[in-house]
Amino acid sequence: MAHFPLSDGRPPWRAQVLTLFPEMFPGPLGVSLIGQALEAGIWSLDTIQIRDFGLGRHRQVDDTPAGGGAGMVLRADVLGPALDHARERAPAAPLIYLSPRGTPLTQQLARDLAEGPGVTLLAGRFEGVDQRVIDEKGLKEISIGDYVLAGGEVAAMVLIEACVRLLPGVLGAAESLASESFETGLLEYPQYTKPREWEGRAIPEILLSGDHKKIAEWRQRQAEELTAARRPDLIRPTRHAK
Amino acid sequence: MAHFPLSDGRPPWRAQVLTLFPEMFPGPLGVSLIGQALEAGIWSLDTIQIRDFGLGRHRQVDDTPAGGGAGMVLRADVLGPALDHARERAPAAPLIYLSPRGTPLTQQLARDLAEGPGVTLLAGRFEGVDQRVIDEKGLKEISIGDYVLAGGEVAAMVLIEACVRLLPGVLGAAESLASESFETGLLEYPQYTKPREWEGRAIPEILLSGDHKKIAEWRQRQAEELTAARRPDLIRPTRHAK
Repeated sequence: MAHFPLSDGRPPWRAQVLTLFPEMFPGPLGVSLIGQALEAGIWSLDTIQIRDFGLGRHRQVDDTPAGGGAGMVLRADVLGPALDHARERAPAAPLIYLSPRGTPLTQQLARDLAEGPGVTLLAGRFEGVDQRVIDEKGLKEISIGDYVLAGGEVAAMVLIEACVRLLPGVLGAAESLASESFETGLLEYPQYTKPREWEGRAIPEILLSGDHKKIAEWRQRQAEELTAARRPDLIRPTRHAK
Repeated sequence: MAHFPLSDGRPPWRAQVLTLFPEMFPGPLGVSLIGQALEAGIWSLDTIQIRDFGLGRHRQVDDTPAGGGAGMVLRADVLGPALDHARERAPAAPLIYLSPRGTPLTQQLARDLAEGPGVTLLAGRFEGVDQRVIDEKGLKEISIGDYVLAGGEVAAMVLIEACVRLLPGVLGAAESLASESFETGLLEYPQYTKPREWEGRAIPEILLSGDHKKIAEWRQRQAEELTAARRPDLIRPTRHAK
């Protein structure tokens, strides 16, 4: 995978993923805009197989939870060296554990991460990871949403895709970041395109008026109304105060 | 892909994805537990190429936004027939459009969808889809989180994975749904496993005590404290009232 500096001298934004299933990558991240940016060297992707740091002949990575309970827990003495290895390769990248217990991923957080050198992501499996490795290595826990997945891999893809599309040169001039959801603090206004009438439904007259000022006002009002109706939490001042 | 009924006569949970990039699937959903469940016929996956419903010789699927603005919008007269085709194949499955403007995906929503016959998912690209197809076809908009992706495909994978792991027979007896985040309304308590001491950090004494009642109490307290510290919104009564 490309690691050469870009023409402007900036090194690629570097994603590393620690996983038991490196074969999942790049997967969907190798396709379309995000995949083209990977090929162009705007970002790079490396996987680290956790099992390479496993213990003994069987490369054991997990064990039963202390205090009992179902499932298996990833061992600190396996993840610790794996994380050290990752940190050696990308010392400045934040170490992130994808977990439903984490700070919710937001557009602002994606923006902050995209502005940095990259990310090192731990994708868990089973019941989770030994808390001591989170504490010792200072892992930042990030959650992509209030639901549980079978593992952290697809969550890692979500985080990477949210960041990579913000990197300079990834979205063409035709695509815009300005009006989309969250960039303005609001959900995006409804979109329409040809044909003018479809199934008895017409494009709102105002959008065909050619009056750019009125169109901008209508879209702003639509975005405000939609956000108020669907996601009042996004505009409630208590949320902003966090 | 397998569509035969399971041994208990239940048809597989059926996921259909409308996309411009069917080659992304099953991708990570073909691996590990979720992939094994796919092979076992517990669930099924079909993609529908939106471009097959495109217009004219060039199979056009999108056009410029009415009223101006950057990017392209997926046309209602392309998506409409594509959705009709999907609905014919799975009449009882809800039609879902993955969009940051949607209802947030939660564990409860994943549970509700997993209990149904399956899902038909529209993965958008570009600036979005013509609002009229959302209205006309009664698409339910679901958001996997407050951030923007390059397309709906990875979001579709998140939704499918969150649902499929809840289907009977997917998680082995060793894995438990009972104590994990959100199933109790709280974030999950910290986990520990061997070795007893690592990097000067010991497993909390209580977990090695063998006193199951005290361990359960400790874990409950830890879960409550963690949730109060990180996600007070999950326990604030206003949130439950929604």
